[in-house]
Amino acid sequence: MTDMHIEQPYLMFLGDARDQLAAKTADGIAFWRREWCVGQLRLPDCNADIGLPDMTISEAAAKGAKSLIIGVVNAGGVLPGSWTDTIVEALEAGMDVASGLHTRVADVPVIRDTAERLGRRLFDVRHPTREFATGKGTKRTGKRLLTVGTDCSIGKMYTCLAMEKDMRARGMKADFRATGQTGIFIAGTGISVDAVVADFISGSIEWLTPDNDSDHWDLIEGQGSLFHASYAGVTLGLIHGSQPDALVLCHEPTRAHMRGLPDAPLPPIDLCIRANVDAAHLTNPDCRMIGVAVNTSALDEKAARDCLGALEDATGLPCVDPVRDGVARLVNALP
Amino acid sequence: MTDMHIEQPYLMFLGDARDQLAAKTADGIAFWRREWCVGQLRLPDCNADIGLPDMTISEAAAKGAKSLIIGVVNAGGVLPGSWTDTIVEALEAGMDVASGLHTRVADVPVIRDTAERLGRRLFDVRHPTREFATGKGTKRTGKRLLTVGTDCSIGKMYTCLAMEKDMRARGMKADFRATGQTGIFIAGTGISVDAVVADFISGSIEWLTPDNDSDHWDLIEGQGSLFHASYAGVTLGLIHGSQPDALVLCHEPTRAHMRGLPDAPLPPIDLCIRANVDAAHLTNPDCRMIGVAVNTSALDEKAARDCLGALEDATGLPCVDPVRDGVARLVNALP
Repeated sequence: MTDMHIEQPYLMFLGDARDQLAAKTADGIAFWRREWCVGQLRLPDCNADIGLPDMTISEAAAKGAKSLIIGVVNAGGVLPGSWTDTIVEALEAGMDVASGLHTRVADVPVIRDTAERLGRRLFDVRHPTREFATGKGTKRTGKRLLTVGTDCSIGKMYTCLAMEKDMRARGMKADFRATGQTGIFIAGTGISVDAVVADFISGSIEWLTPDNDSDHWDLIEGQGSLFHASYAGVTLGLIHGSQPDALVLCHEPTRAHMRGLPDAPLPPIDLCIRANVDAAHLTNPDCRMIGVAVNTSALDEKAARDCLGALEDATGLPCVDPVRDGVARLVNALP
Repeated sequence: MTDMHIEQPYLMFLGDARDQLAAKTADGIAFWRREWCVGQLRLPDCNADIGLPDMTISEAAAKGAKSLIIGVVNAGGVLPGSWTDTIVEALEAGMDVASGLHTRVADVPVIRDTAERLGRRLFDVRHPTREFATGKGTKRTGKRLLTVGTDCSIGKMYTCLAMEKDMRARGMKADFRATGQTGIFIAGTGISVDAVVADFISGSIEWLTPDNDSDHWDLIEGQGSLFHASYAGVTLGLIHGSQPDALVLCHEPTRAHMRGLPDAPLPPIDLCIRANVDAAHLTNPDCRMIGVAVNTSALDEKAARDCLGALEDATGLPCVDPVRDGVARLVNALP
């Protein structure tokens, strides 16, 4: 996987997903890259539907599908035999296969052998296989924005993608840079940074966001939180490797504790802003926090307005819900 | 390597080390664990000497050596054939083999096959093979000290080992906990934390330093620096996973820039202290910085005294050179 680039268009494989949540990754891909998706393939017991035309492998191949995307969580981490048959059929129909499973499809002998025989590529996007240099912190050309968060799973990918869409509509040069599995399918490339060897966290992000045009923005998907006891090391390496000019803080105002850590409260917003900006100054002394992206989906309209207003007063920054309000005010605030 | 414990006593293998520096790891082991080392084995072109009796594999086996320790850097990362022969001979004489090389000894077929046939164990200490849980940050019993630094390679291991020696001499319960290759040989066990997958940095340190007696101290070897753009993610995960009650800051006053990063100055001491203590408060709100360990080897006695005095004035903490002064004042300052 030294030069990972997943070819479009995609056929989305939903397997026998037990519910819609199990197909969350596929859902995200279809939402952000509808134009890349020719259809969905669902096995008989599938309880998910991402709103694409159902089709078989041969129908998808006839429509030009280049890659089968396994964007579904399977029970127990084992690849069921019924999936193997479909994957082999896709390889034989001319497609590459990209998987977000913990289990590597390349570890299944019949899949690996078929891919080798036919010259197809297998992408296990959770498992980076290329080697990286250690981070250097050297100044790069072009501009970079990184989303950070008060917690994990709080809208960092969504905010980057919404900004990419808004900026491209304005004719700005902007590319989403993926650091997690769903993001990698949406970008067609990227690095699953939490699976990189610890010594190379910042170096892998420097590789992902190299020199670019002076008016080009990399919109880098953040991971974890500086205040999450499990993952803060990943977050800090991401901050240093990104060398961001701008940060956006992502927040969910009703969350009672850090994800997966029932005894850990979320950090105060002001402390979280200061800690992220201080960390970013190590590799870019000019970095600024430009706004807050708030997921207010758990609040009604009135409560959401009150919450966003209070956050604006407290931070002095534009605070928006990307779903309710869009992200134009964040784009306007870019340096 | 699910239960890594390297058996003592050791036979130290120096290979054909081109100079004393190439045998730095072996030097450190012989300095801190002289009583575990029965002798050294040097090939004809060896230019290093760690002051142990020279002996052959069979002589070492007769003296009870349980493990051959490869504590030397080889040129080019390739395992020379002359080393392979010696390693196989050690396995046949009844020893396990532990290596700090980047190249895995377990990847050399004749070594792997011989070890399997004879039931010997191969430890590639730079390459953790066991799986860890993600960190949880839950309070553990017992006490923990972590060394942190203004930079890498600045005395964190030395300071921990000097404190272990001082504390044991006072009858205190103290164990050095190794997080790098030389430390692992010295402890006989440990985790090479910079080689752990990024998601599990803090979790691996929680595994290394589990619940213990309430009056027991884990003295945890730090790595990197919060201010080193290459490795800060490792450092932050180490801080959170250690859940330290006490920190000691390690410093080298004459270093002109961060190791390997010629454009990056060392951080101001006060900022470095505050950032490390702030980070530690996430998993232990009572954590304190208790002192500074300074490597003044580049200074004469007068300049060293002046430097330590100025640092004490600036920080209000005991500041000692562990080599010139010992670490008794740091031990006295433990909470």
